[in-house]
Amino acid sequence: MPSFDIAILTTAEDLLSGDTTDSNSSVVVEILTRHGYRPRCSLAVSDNEKEIFAALNYLAQQARFVIVSGGLGSGSNALTARAAARALGLPLVIHEEALEMVRRWCDNHHQPMDPANERQALLPQSAQVITNPEGMTPGFSLNKNQCRMFFLPGTLVEMRAMFEQSVLPQLKQDYPEAQLLHRRTLKLFGLTEVRIRTMIPAGRLPEGIDISYTQDFPLILVNLKASGEEAEERLDHAEALLLQVLGDHLMARDGQTAEGNVGQLLTHAGLTLALAESCTGGLLSSMLTRHPGASAFFNRAGITYADAAKQHWLKVPQAILLHHGSVSEPCARAMATGLRQESGTDLALAITGIAGPDGGTAEKPVGTVFLALAGTTEVHAQRYLFAGDRARVQRMSAFMALEWLRRFALQHLDTD
Amino acid sequence: MPSFDIAILTTAEDLLSGDTTDSNSSVVVEILTRHGYRPRCSLAVSDNEKEIFAALNYLAQQARFVIVSGGLGSGSNALTARAAARALGLPLVIHEEALEMVRRWCDNHHQPMDPANERQALLPQSAQVITNPEGMTPGFSLNKNQCRMFFLPGTLVEMRAMFEQSVLPQLKQDYPEAQLLHRRTLKLFGLTEVRIRTMIPAGRLPEGIDISYTQDFPLILVNLKASGEEAEERLDHAEALLLQVLGDHLMARDGQTAEGNVGQLLTHAGLTLALAESCTGGLLSSMLTRHPGASAFFNRAGITYADAAKQHWLKVPQAILLHHGSVSEPCARAMATGLRQESGTDLALAITGIAGPDGGTAEKPVGTVFLALAGTTEVHAQRYLFAGDRARVQRMSAFMALEWLRRFALQHLDTD
Repeated sequence: MPSFDIAILTTAEDLLSGDTTDSNSSVVVEILTRHGYRPRCSLAVSDNEKEIFAALNYLAQQARFVIVSGGLGSGSNALTARAAARALGLPLVIHEEALEMVRRWCDNHHQPMDPANERQALLPQSAQVITNPEGMTPGFSLNKNQCRMFFLPGTLVEMRAMFEQSVLPQLKQDYPEAQLLHRRTLKLFGLTEVRIRTMIPAGRLPEGIDISYTQDFPLILVNLKASGEEAEERLDHAEALLLQVLGDHLMARDGQTAEGNVGQLLTHAGLTLALAESCTGGLLSSMLTRHPGASAFFNRAGITYADAAKQHWLKVPQAILLHHGSVSEPCARAMATGLRQESGTDLALAITGIAGPDGGTAEKPVGTVFLALAGTTEVHAQRYLFAGDRARVQRMSAFMALEWLRRFALQHLDTD
Repeated sequence: MPSFDIAILTTAEDLLSGDTTDSNSSVVVEILTRHGYRPRCSLAVSDNEKEIFAALNYLAQQARFVIVSGGLGSGSNALTARAAARALGLPLVIHEEALEMVRRWCDNHHQPMDPANERQALLPQSAQVITNPEGMTPGFSLNKNQCRMFFLPGTLVEMRAMFEQSVLPQLKQDYPEAQLLHRRTLKLFGLTEVRIRTMIPAGRLPEGIDISYTQDFPLILVNLKASGEEAEERLDHAEALLLQVLGDHLMARDGQTAEGNVGQLLTHAGLTLALAESCTGGLLSSMLTRHPGASAFFNRAGITYADAAKQHWLKVPQAILLHHGSVSEPCARAMATGLRQESGTDLALAITGIAGPDGGTAEKPVGTVFLALAGTTEVHAQRYLFAGDRARVQRMSAFMALEWLRRFALQHLDTD
C-alpha cells in the first residue's frame, strides 16, 4: 500500500547548481497544490544512472504517481530513460512516434536530423510518448506495478507545459474529486503566531478543517485546509469565523502581496502618494512599483540618504537636522510635510531610521525607526524599535509603512 | 556499496508550506558545499512517521552520512525520533544527558520543566546526543550498518548552529581531504552562455577541471570544480585562463553580489553617486543600500514617476517632456545632468523606460529603456530594448546601470 500518493523526482548535474532542481520541484509542487493535489515527497538526485535507478525503485514502492523531471534529451545522454528501462526490466528501443516528433521539430526549426537528435527517441519499450510543445525532447510515461511514472525534460518551460497539458489530465482522471485538498491562506501583519493561536476560536471551527502557520517575515500566514464533501463551504465558514477576530490584520490572501493590495486600495480610494525613504533605501518604492499600474497612485519617492537631499527635496529645515538629527520625530514630520507640499499628493509618507549594523547610539540604537504620514489635515508620526539585522529592520519598516497606508486608505474609503 | 556519500532528509508539515523544507535543505547543501562536500541526494517528506521510516531505510542503503532536519521536539510529537527508533529496531528511552540539557535550557529561560519538555529527551537507545546552543531540543546521531545519521531540529537557526558545531567536525574526521570538491564561481554580465562557451579555451584548461553554467538572471555563472591533489592550484590556473578572455565581464565571484562590488568600487574610487530611477522604481537604490556602508558613496535617489517630479527634483525642462516625452534620450540626459547639479555628486545616473506590461507604442515598445550617466566632464546616454516581462525589464535595467557604474569606477581608478 503506497504511503503517499504523488512523489516528485528531479535530477540535476549538481544539487548546488540547484536553481534547476529547486525550481523544477517547486513548480511541480505549486501546480499540484493549485489543483488540489497534495504531493507528499520530493527527491532530488544527481545526474547518475545508478542513483536515478535506485530512486525510481524506491518511489515506485511509495507512491501511486511519480513525476520525474530531468535527465532526458541528448545533453544528458538519456540517463533517465536508461535508468527507467533498467528499473522496469525493459529494453530501450527507438520509439517511432517519438522519432516522428523529433523529426517534425527539427523540420520546423530548420535543424538537421542527426544521430544525436535521433537518440531523443530512444525510450523504454511500451512507454507512452508525451508531446513536448516547447522543445525537441519528448517525454514518456510508464507503469511499474501499481505506480504510474511520468518522465519530463528538466527545462522549466518545457516541463511546465507538458505537465499542464498531459500529466494533469491523467491525474484528474484517476483521482476522485473527494480526495482533493482545498486551501485558503490569510496573510496577517502585526500579530505573533502565539497571539493568533490564542485569538482563534478553535472549538467553533467546522469539523475537518486543518490549520497551520508559516512565516513570510514579517507576515504570519494562516493556512486552512480541508478535503472531502463540501470542503469549500466549510472553508468559507472557517474563514468567516477567523476574519471576525483577525480581519483587522489581514494584509493579503493566497497569491496576493501586501504591497499589491495596498496599491490597489490607494488607487480605489483615489489617493496619490509620495514617499521619502532614508533607512529603507528605496525598498518600499521598489515593492510598490513592481506591480503594473503603480503610476495610478504613485507620484515620486525621494531616497534621501544625505542631509542635503532632505533639505533640497523635502525642505527639511536645517535647524531640525542640527538640533534633532536626521533620525528623529521632528525630522520625520518635516520630511513628510515638506514632501507633501513639493509633490502635491494626497499623502506623503516618510521613513527615517538606523538599519545598522553601524550608526546606533545608546539613545538611538540600531533598529530605531521613525515613520511620519502627512495627509490632508494632519501629520501623524511614531517611533519604533525593530529587532534583527539590517535586512529585517528595512523589511519591517517597509511593512509598517504599508500597514499605515492600508489603514489610512480603508478609513478614507469608509468615510467617503 | 553506497552510491552517494552524503544524503539530506528534511521533514515538514506540508511540502508546500515548504519555505522550511527548501530553506533547510538548501542551507545544508550550501554549508556542505562551502566545505568541499558534495551532497548527492536530497529528500523531503511530510511529517509522518511511516514516511520518515521508509525514507531513513532508503537513505541508509544509499549514503554513508544522512543529515536529517525536522520532526524533533514537542511540536512534532518527536516523530523523527520514533521513526529512527523503528528503523534501527531500538527502544525509545529518556536519555539522561538530553534531559539534563532540556532542564538547563528551561532553567536559563525561566520556563517550567513540564512533561511536554521532558519528551524532548525521548531518544532511541544508544543515540549520541548533539548539543543545541540555540534552543531547547537536543539533536542526536546514530549508526545504521555503515551509515551514520545525524538528527537535527527543523528550526533554521538551531539546525545551522548544530550542523556547524557538531556535524561538520565529525564529517571532517571521517572524510579524507582528497575527496573534497573545490569550487570557484565567476558571475558574468553581458555574455550569453553560448558565447561564453565559444570564448573558453577548452583545450588549454588543466586536467580534471569541471565547468558548468547556471543563470542568476541576468548574470551567467561559470562554475569550476576540481578535486584530488593540488585542486586549488589547478583551479587558480583555470581561473586565470578564463579571466584572460572573460575578465572584462566579471561582476562578482562566489558569495559576492554585483551591487555590493559596485558599491565597494565606488567607495574605493572615492566617487559619490546620485540616482534618478523611473521605470525601475527604486530597485537599483534598494539593491545598493541593502549593503552596509552605502552612505559612503550614495547621496540620494529620485524615483520620479510623475513628470512634475522630474521637473522639480531633476530640473528637466518642460520643453523636453513636451517634445520628446519622458522616455527619450534627451529626457534621460536632462535627468542625469539636472540631478548631478542638484546633488553635487561626482556621478548622476538616470534610468527612464517602459517596463510594461502597458505603455508601449510602435515607436517605443515595452522594454525600451534609456540610461544616462553624467560625470565630471561629459554625459553619456544610450537606448536599449530589453526582452521579457516587467520584472525582467526592471532587473535588466538595474544591472545595465550597475555595469555602467562598474566600468566608470574601474576607469577612474586606472587613470588615477
